[in-house]
Amino acid sequence: MQSFELNKTDILKIKQALEGEDKDLLLLLSDYHASEIAIIFESLSLDSQKKIINLLPIELASEIISEMNPEAHPEELLIDLDPEKRQEIVEELDYDDATDIISQMDAEDQKEILEDLDKEDATNIRNLLNYPEDTAGGLMNTQLIKIDLQMSKKQAIDEIILQSEEIEEFYTIYVVDKTDTLQGIVSLKDIIKSKADISIADLVNKDFVFVKADVDQEEVADLISQYNLTSIPVVDANMKLLGRVTFDDVIDVIEEESTEDMLKISGVSEDEELSGNWQDAVKSRLPWLILNLGTAFLASSVIRYFEPTLSQVVVLTGYMTIIAGMGGNAATQALAVTVRRITLSDLSDNQAYRTVVKEFTVGLINGGVSGIIVFLFAFLYDGNPLLGLVIFLAMTGNLMIAGLTGAGIPLLLKRVGIDPAIASSIIITTFTDVFGFLILLGLASKLLL
Amino acid sequence: MQSFELNKTDILKIKQALEGEDKDLLLLLSDYHASEIAIIFESLSLDSQKKIINLLPIELASEIISEMNPEAHPEELLIDLDPEKRQEIVEELDYDDATDIISQMDAEDQKEILEDLDKEDATNIRNLLNYPEDTAGGLMNTQLIKIDLQMSKKQAIDEIILQSEEIEEFYTIYVVDKTDTLQGIVSLKDIIKSKADISIADLVNKDFVFVKADVDQEEVADLISQYNLTSIPVVDANMKLLGRVTFDDVIDVIEEESTEDMLKISGVSEDEELSGNWQDAVKSRLPWLILNLGTAFLASSVIRYFEPTLSQVVVLTGYMTIIAGMGGNAATQALAVTVRRITLSDLSDNQAYRTVVKEFTVGLINGGVSGIIVFLFAFLYDGNPLLGLVIFLAMTGNLMIAGLTGAGIPLLLKRVGIDPAIASSIIITTFTDVFGFLILLGLASKLLL
Repeated sequence: MQSFELNKTDILKIKQALEGEDKDLLLLLSDYHASEIAIIFESLSLDSQKKIINLLPIELASEIISEMNPEAHPEELLIDLDPEKRQEIVEELDYDDATDIISQMDAEDQKEILEDLDKEDATNIRNLLNYPEDTAGGLMNTQLIKIDLQMSKKQAIDEIILQSEEIEEFYTIYVVDKTDTLQGIVSLKDIIKSKADISIADLVNKDFVFVKADVDQEEVADLISQYNLTSIPVVDANMKLLGRVTFDDVIDVIEEESTEDMLKISGVSEDEELSGNWQDAVKSRLPWLILNLGTAFLASSVIRYFEPTLSQVVVLTGYMTIIAGMGGNAATQALAVTVRRITLSDLSDNQAYRTVVKEFTVGLINGGVSGIIVFLFAFLYDGNPLLGLVIFLAMTGNLMIAGLTGAGIPLLLKRVGIDPAIASSIIITTFTDVFGFLILLGLASKLLL
Repeated sequence: MQSFELNKTDILKIKQALEGEDKDLLLLLSDYHASEIAIIFESLSLDSQKKIINLLPIELASEIISEMNPEAHPEELLIDLDPEKRQEIVEELDYDDATDIISQMDAEDQKEILEDLDKEDATNIRNLLNYPEDTAGGLMNTQLIKIDLQMSKKQAIDEIILQSEEIEEFYTIYVVDKTDTLQGIVSLKDIIKSKADISIADLVNKDFVFVKADVDQEEVADLISQYNLTSIPVVDANMKLLGRVTFDDVIDVIEEESTEDMLKISGVSEDEELSGNWQDAVKSRLPWLILNLGTAFLASSVIRYFEPTLSQVVVLTGYMTIIAGMGGNAATQALAVTVRRITLSDLSDNQAYRTVVKEFTVGLINGGVSGIIVFLFAFLYDGNPLLGLVIFLAMTGNLMIAGLTGAGIPLLLKRVGIDPAIASSIIITTFTDVFGFLILLGLASKLLL
């Protein structure tokens, strides 16, 4: 089995079928899983999406909408549907999925949709809309299976079968007391295996992992990943059960957080949508470039200071860019390894210290090796061993600084509670530019004039 | 509840307890979950790890070893234990975890450990050792629950209870025929809900997702993520059931693949261990730096060509580094966004074309704005509007090239089947260096001399 890849043939066939008879389109669509149609939707116009949604049974239509990439804007599709169809679809959606989509609409559309729903659905979604999107409360689903601590085996099984009518996958069964306070968890397997006269209170596992609703989504992802959980219960300050976050939501969070890290160290705002338009991209990146422009003026003021040296030894200019470029790349290497390491696990002081020493050593060795190559070039091509020595020293020194700052600055930021990934390559390369030029031109003005 | 963070106090308390009486140490350890002790192990010596493993019950000891970060080298701890203890621990481990750890040992240690095991365990692990680590076969676990298609409801429940003795979480029940060929899946819930006289053949869901053993782990992760599966069955060419991959293995794969992407675009080999030693880091990064050195010589040869211009307009040198640096950073921004986008979803030809146009537009705007700033500086500070014009044009041109190559090259690589993330910033910045210098110095030699 292959995971579904967007294929020109699939798109073409569906586009053709959209022109033809409804029954042929339906037949063709029956070959695809809801999550596959959601991917195909990204290549279709809003009108075509609408036509397909209107043709399909409500259950499938709502599954497609819940599987759509948020960047493909399922909320626009939903707004565009007939009110009646829309209401049926929203009622079929899981509360967390409905909330995610509705939260993207403006206040007026939200109001209109919520007014059409039955009271219970509307209240549930309104409650969920109150939690920030990137917290446990924002991620959680309120549909789950819960049973009472005092139930007998028989009552519990009947209750589970009844509640599971509305839930496709329940993973864990939550056990609550009369006040809806979470007491523990139990698995269907343990209930089945138990003797007939047992009560749930005898089976409940009271040693379980949970989160408060305001906990950050990254924290929730860490817990699910660390304890290998299929789902984690979300509670309020009094341990009242509010909902649960499932592993599939967390897989999305992990992908999202990795994307943010990668963007941040590359000098892109973490909230830039990957498939956003150019206006968003300019807004997200121009501030970083302006910051870089400021630091570049700093580096270029070093060059200006040494202008007399440069005008006498013009060949230095070519080497200058080589040394600055190498320093920037070595710093980016050290930065990427260190930031990723900090993200995946916390480092003790001792580990942090050893990381900096390691990166400094790597800079020394890589700088030395690269330094020998540029030395040989200056010696053999430019016929100037003293120039070679100056360049060798500048290269080695700059790569040592690259290692030191590439590892040291994100670790320092983490220590004082700032996101280490904002130590983007733009900030780190300022150090290697300024120090690279200082070492090279400083040494050159002493030794070569 | 908070996810466990490595805390100096925890480590200190445990280090102190290691010096004291065993019963106090045991009491202290009872406060921690196995996955937490596994994290604490990263800060302890091999001898301390061994002492703790020897003190704890086999079940907990093996859970700690299976939860240890591969980079903390659980295989070294295992080799160091008494043969008897080691055998007990390996027998308690899930086959996939045991295989992962044993695969890190040299052939002699592998042989010694496998010889100590009972025949069934040894055969299972030997079979798993044959699959490459990064395939479905290498990820899968052979422990699962399977029942026969012909079983009655009662037989099936008895069989599930029996088999579940050895498996903590089974998620899905696999249905096979007499030849162990996979026929479908069924959930415990569906069996419980069914009428008493039903056969499994009536309940089985034949529309399920599966993978062949040689499928790449990234593909497996995509399937589990796309279809929101807790586990996916692994089969051979004849649909014989070999094992299953569970969502928790896939969370690790997703984190691993994100790390590799981030390292690759930063010019670090994808297989560098984040916590490896400096020797490994030099081996992983020096080749990229040497490559960069080669491309930097190329850029510096442009500068050498224009040496007469530079020696007459020395002030150009400072602007040169600003324009090269800005181009490099803008290219890295476009590269990070494009590579991450390609990784998370496939782009149609039309989407790819629009991405390149978008990045080109972003480069034009960001280059224009930055260009105006440097123009003003050259005009007001250096008092030379013509110099300002040259720099404005070079900045805008270079940032357009940055957008074009930062988006175009990874998309091109993907199209011809090469991993787009190897279009690292090292390769992309060569373009911005060379073209940046060419535009700036070429224009300067025409307009300023």
